[in-house]
Amino acid sequence: MKSRLYLFDTTLRDGQQTPGIDFSVEDKIAIAAMLDAFGIDYVEGGYPGANPTDTAFFSGKRTTRAKFVAFGMTKRVGVSASNDPGLAGLLQSQSDAICYVAKSWDYHVRVALGCTEDENLDAIRASVEAARDAGKEAMVDCEHFFDGYKANPGYALACAKAAHEAGARWVVLCDTNGGTLPSEVRAIVARVIAEGIPGENLGIHAHDDTGQAVANSLAAVEAGVRQIQGTLNGIGERCGNANLITLIPTLVLKPAFADRFTTGISAEALKGISRLSRAFDELLNRAPDTQSPYVGSSAFATKAGIHASAILKEPETYEHVPPETVGNRRRVMVSDQGGRANFVAELKRRGIEVARADHRLDTLIALVKEREAQGYAYEGADASFELLARNTLGTVPKFFDVTSFRCMIERRFDANGQLKTVSEAIVKIEVDGEERMSVAEGHGPVNALDIALRKDLGKLQAEIEDMELVDFKVRILNGGTEAVTRVLIESRDATGARWWTVGVSDNIIDASFQALMDSIVYKLMKNREMAGLVAAE
Amino acid sequence: MKSRLYLFDTTLRDGQQTPGIDFSVEDKIAIAAMLDAFGIDYVEGGYPGANPTDTAFFSGKRTTRAKFVAFGMTKRVGVSASNDPGLAGLLQSQSDAICYVAKSWDYHVRVALGCTEDENLDAIRASVEAARDAGKEAMVDCEHFFDGYKANPGYALACAKAAHEAGARWVVLCDTNGGTLPSEVRAIVARVIAEGIPGENLGIHAHDDTGQAVANSLAAVEAGVRQIQGTLNGIGERCGNANLITLIPTLVLKPAFADRFTTGISAEALKGISRLSRAFDELLNRAPDTQSPYVGSSAFATKAGIHASAILKEPETYEHVPPETVGNRRRVMVSDQGGRANFVAELKRRGIEVARADHRLDTLIALVKEREAQGYAYEGADASFELLARNTLGTVPKFFDVTSFRCMIERRFDANGQLKTVSEAIVKIEVDGEERMSVAEGHGPVNALDIALRKDLGKLQAEIEDMELVDFKVRILNGGTEAVTRVLIESRDATGARWWTVGVSDNIIDASFQALMDSIVYKLMKNREMAGLVAAE
Repeated sequence: MKSRLYLFDTTLRDGQQTPGIDFSVEDKIAIAAMLDAFGIDYVEGGYPGANPTDTAFFSGKRTTRAKFVAFGMTKRVGVSASNDPGLAGLLQSQSDAICYVAKSWDYHVRVALGCTEDENLDAIRASVEAARDAGKEAMVDCEHFFDGYKANPGYALACAKAAHEAGARWVVLCDTNGGTLPSEVRAIVARVIAEGIPGENLGIHAHDDTGQAVANSLAAVEAGVRQIQGTLNGIGERCGNANLITLIPTLVLKPAFADRFTTGISAEALKGISRLSRAFDELLNRAPDTQSPYVGSSAFATKAGIHASAILKEPETYEHVPPETVGNRRRVMVSDQGGRANFVAELKRRGIEVARADHRLDTLIALVKEREAQGYAYEGADASFELLARNTLGTVPKFFDVTSFRCMIERRFDANGQLKTVSEAIVKIEVDGEERMSVAEGHGPVNALDIALRKDLGKLQAEIEDMELVDFKVRILNGGTEAVTRVLIESRDATGARWWTVGVSDNIIDASFQALMDSIVYKLMKNREMAGLVAAE
Repeated sequence: MKSRLYLFDTTLRDGQQTPGIDFSVEDKIAIAAMLDAFGIDYVEGGYPGANPTDTAFFSGKRTTRAKFVAFGMTKRVGVSASNDPGLAGLLQSQSDAICYVAKSWDYHVRVALGCTEDENLDAIRASVEAARDAGKEAMVDCEHFFDGYKANPGYALACAKAAHEAGARWVVLCDTNGGTLPSEVRAIVARVIAEGIPGENLGIHAHDDTGQAVANSLAAVEAGVRQIQGTLNGIGERCGNANLITLIPTLVLKPAFADRFTTGISAEALKGISRLSRAFDELLNRAPDTQSPYVGSSAFATKAGIHASAILKEPETYEHVPPETVGNRRRVMVSDQGGRANFVAELKRRGIEVARADHRLDTLIALVKEREAQGYAYEGADASFELLARNTLGTVPKFFDVTSFRCMIERRFDANGQLKTVSEAIVKIEVDGEERMSVAEGHGPVNALDIALRKDLGKLQAEIEDMELVDFKVRILNGGTEAVTRVLIESRDATGARWWTVGVSDNIIDASFQALMDSIVYKLMKNREMAGLVAAE
């Protein structure tokens, strides 16, 4: 009989402590949905009452499968639980559970709380009871537990016991300062269990300050805890929290854990973990860590050399787990020949058949290499890659021409004396020998250009009515306002299809225009393909 | 009596397997010098004979204190050691030591080498002897040792013993595929020692495929090995090798290791480790990982309000080691999450004295919260924060006014029939009651606006001549072209000062304008402060 391990995500709470990361309410809603769909057991959303973002986020329940957790301090000393406004905020939030943070290092009780050790124990008990009375699951993060245990084991244990005896579902042992080593975690967890708190009620919260947050979490599980707290891609205060994206595959795939434990993540769900990790980085608009365990683009990559040919023959003796199990793929970086086979396979996947010997393939490979050197990223822009390929193979009709465009952005005082910035775009196109001109205003130049461009395509207009732009990402490829800018645009239409296009230029408007154009042309081509007017090559 | 641990760096050999990293001879010379000066015991430089770079690198001795190590395969089966040209290349190189890689998984001996198990053992012995006969220290990397041990413990041990008995100074147990867990490493190392190879002759070579290369290395040390192999900043094949930059501070500072072991790195040398890590990233031309243990710029940063005030009082209870010991520093960041104490401390650091009870502090905190909710990020934009603070406190003079601006971006055919996109900006400002108008072209609208804005500030113009824009970052805060855009701009001047400013708007041009304006106003204010015209509040 396997034991159940519970996964607790604190991306939206401790992850919010990461320097440079600030989630909006919309970000939090999107991330909670991702975690919920993936199969995480607990999603901690923030501290309702502490700031407007978190208060707004907790005005609704944001998960369906996962338990939605509000974080906050135990009641203040000197007021009763029912008279503490901070506690009231937690109890009234739309959460399923409350995770209290409680001091468990005597030093911090004295210095930071300025109360007696017993008052702190009372606050823990009363807060847990208040959560239970409100019909919520209660848990307690014992802050500084390991450092506290080293300084005063009796008091650290007393805090954990107070939480457990008051009925907390979970007592979470936190390595708040992140400096505890795996052997210490193992020994202290064993001690806590020997003192009477069952492992079934214990959790671990580790930080990466010695590069061992993952190892500390696993050591705690081996010693008996059954809940693991961590974050997506290991974001978090200072060096980050335990990385759930790294921990989960080890728990699900490695016999040392998989033979003893189950989690909420099925083998099928695990295949979505690479996508989850990348989607989260996308949302943060940062480049994924290529060397990230399991999910990085280099995690199963080998440079040409002594290993590469052997890997292709017997991958399992060179890979610690099969890349497909985590939704990643093998990459063997070999020269031209391998590159050619890759291209043929990639085109075939899109329904474009090209013979390996076709000279147009050389043109395409050279073009892609040249463009990627300029900053294009076709891996993230499927539709632009497909267009480039079909253009090189000569199978994209000339739908329309943009003969010129003009954007104007003006900041001035309006009639009411308010400063106002207005953006306008004018686009001149030619469809079927006929010239058309459109003008539009927008929230910014790209928005105005997008609206003007799609305003009047003449006889083609009806075909693009259902398409809309859903995302727009900008990355500056090197410093300065003279830098090269890459724009990625995501579009969708009424069929539910979504496609990404890319543009690169030293001018952000120009880069955006390229991506917008590709998006429209791709849509027109796709319509024809579906209508069978253009046969697949 | 403490035991000596030996540090073996393979940045220049296994690190070279990192996708995207290729060292030139000059790079290798520079990195070897950095490692040597820092106090690493062994510097592995590459595989002389395998490629022109490594052959050239080994034409001279590249270290003075550290032992300079050549890596290569054991002699081929079927030829004697003296008749193997590969081995000759190793023996003739200007190295102090040779590190042989030898198969120790019976499966790979059969499939990859295609020889018998005994032939492989003979090759190990003969190669070690050849190195010793050439007056070099010999060591053997037992490739796939842990996987090999799990498959066939007898044969893996036989390989290790062959190396040891032939006189190898070090027998290195390699987790080549990187999937072994710390508890397995611990158990297998203990077994090898029990079989008769002393820990004083054993090394560990770990990879980060489960995020535990550091933990695996430390587990091996706890089990008895005395040599650790790793790389700078954890570069290496797939997910990288054990990160020496993370391991070394733990070995030197944490009592669990420092009380039992010494290394070649003194407490004084350790203060150079942050610089070493950053210098290596500089050389690779990549942004340092801000969350890297010990050395990252966020490793000792806090933005939590509840912690920040306590940290300033008693840092040692919130920091697992003092940041100075690794040449890093404490950072307390201002943000939405920050409390009153944060603000006072942050303002003080900038020479702005405000009493904690000052009501203007409430205005400032409310303003920062409101702005951060809109998307501003002051923790990344020091100069904008300082301006906001000084404006709230009423101490920034009105230098000039921008009454209006206009940008035009036009894409059209030029005189030669080439499509061309031109950006132009017109700015109207008022300085000292006098109106001035400037126009400029740029690579894009922001570049044009920047140039026009700084073209004619009248009598203030001389003051901003030495300032330039060095970086420009754009983040879209929610999807779509109608999204809110945050622009961060980095500027510098002739004094070497650098400052970051921020702008937020649904219009990217407007957001850029705000950040550009802040940058100029900050520069003007800074000039006055330095000239003593504006007294610190």
